[in-house]
Amino acid sequence: MRRELGERHELVALTLTSQSFPSHVGDISRLEEIEPAFIGVDAVVHLAGSVAMETPWEQVLTNNIVGTYNVFEAARRAGVERVVFASSNHPVGMYELDGAPDLYRVDDGRVIDHAAELRPDSLYGVSKAYGEALGRLYVERHGLRVFCLRIGSVLAGDDPSAAAVSAPALLGLSREEGVHRMRATWLSQRDCCSLIARCLEVEDVSWAVVYGVSANPRRFWDLEHARELLGWEPRDAAPE
Amino acid sequence: MRRELGERHELVALTLTSQSFPSHVGDISRLEEIEPAFIGVDAVVHLAGSVAMETPWEQVLTNNIVGTYNVFEAARRAGVERVVFASSNHPVGMYELDGAPDLYRVDDGRVIDHAAELRPDSLYGVSKAYGEALGRLYVERHGLRVFCLRIGSVLAGDDPSAAAVSAPALLGLSREEGVHRMRATWLSQRDCCSLIARCLEVEDVSWAVVYGVSANPRRFWDLEHARELLGWEPRDAAPE
Repeated sequence: MRRELGERHELVALTLTSQSFPSHVGDISRLEEIEPAFIGVDAVVHLAGSVAMETPWEQVLTNNIVGTYNVFEAARRAGVERVVFASSNHPVGMYELDGAPDLYRVDDGRVIDHAAELRPDSLYGVSKAYGEALGRLYVERHGLRVFCLRIGSVLAGDDPSAAAVSAPALLGLSREEGVHRMRATWLSQRDCCSLIARCLEVEDVSWAVVYGVSANPRRFWDLEHARELLGWEPRDAAPE
Repeated sequence: MRRELGERHELVALTLTSQSFPSHVGDISRLEEIEPAFIGVDAVVHLAGSVAMETPWEQVLTNNIVGTYNVFEAARRAGVERVVFASSNHPVGMYELDGAPDLYRVDDGRVIDHAAELRPDSLYGVSKAYGEALGRLYVERHGLRVFCLRIGSVLAGDDPSAAAVSAPALLGLSREEGVHRMRATWLSQRDCCSLIARCLEVEDVSWAVVYGVSANPRRFWDLEHARELLGWEPRDAAPE
């Protein structure tokens, strides 16, 4: 985000440990501790919390359920206009557990969109479904604008064909199927950042649930809604 | 429930304080404390938790979010087959906040069903949306059968025309509109219990989200899905 958005936006991080770039230190599980970081900002991009599908309940509760409430509540108290919430595909992860590995085929026509019935695959997925419902409440009761991004696979190395990629163990994929999955779910770093940028800049939209995935031939998540609602178009695509 | 279902089912309660009928004492916010109550039972009817729309976050978190996780998890650990979860209309309460008081009119055709997009009206409503998502997870990952009842207004006196009924203050209703609301949302005690009984007895259904409302002319929640899925039909109706 600092690389892709740092020129158009003034970024200040909220992190657990101090950084070399502008940042506050705080733990989102403690509301009072993070409130100062929300003062005077136009938008919050909430990427904090536990990220593993099989995160145990105690961490889901503290980091994702309490933490996400604290983020929305701190934003409300500080009068922040927008919150971009890193949701996940895991609120609808059961479609993949049921459909893999055929779902990864280029010629498989199934597409899961924002209106699909919730079918979480994990407590982590439940926590993200909860976060989306909470976001909707803050839109309708408190006037925030909230953008929920059901993010796919963003990789440190940004390479969708890297060998050492780990799909959820529960999927029970072979090595080749694991590669197909990554080529289906990959979201390039610049596509991730351009999606966040659209949420920070779009006018006349106060609520969105969209998938964050590059234009991969093997993808099984919808891009049409993000295109229509936000005008967002990914620029990258994993190889077949 | 003891009056309506006590002859067909052997009931044991789990309550905060000791009772004159068969019961365990325990607080659902403490998993270890409630686990013994789940041993050897066929089904759990989860009616515990905070019930007021404007319940503050700390109580929503403890009683509804943690408590409902503990109920599903204790049921799973004990091998309980079914959980009937007292959800609420508040996960979709914004439709009412937007539509009242016209929504209560006999000739208003709007009906909110189980497939309506989630629009919680409160943290309480978010906690019930979360409980439904959690229930779905326990169905799909752990093989439980879960029935989520979006319950309307069940009254101690069972009289839908009682004067002293309190609609959520946020609705800003006049006294007459408050009566209309109650006549729209009323669920008689025996209809509530017959709905629970259907969930305890129905075969071949492992997941349901249905509305619990009597056949009121002013109602604005769907009954068709409960009829089709569970074969449940309310016997009572509030007067116009």
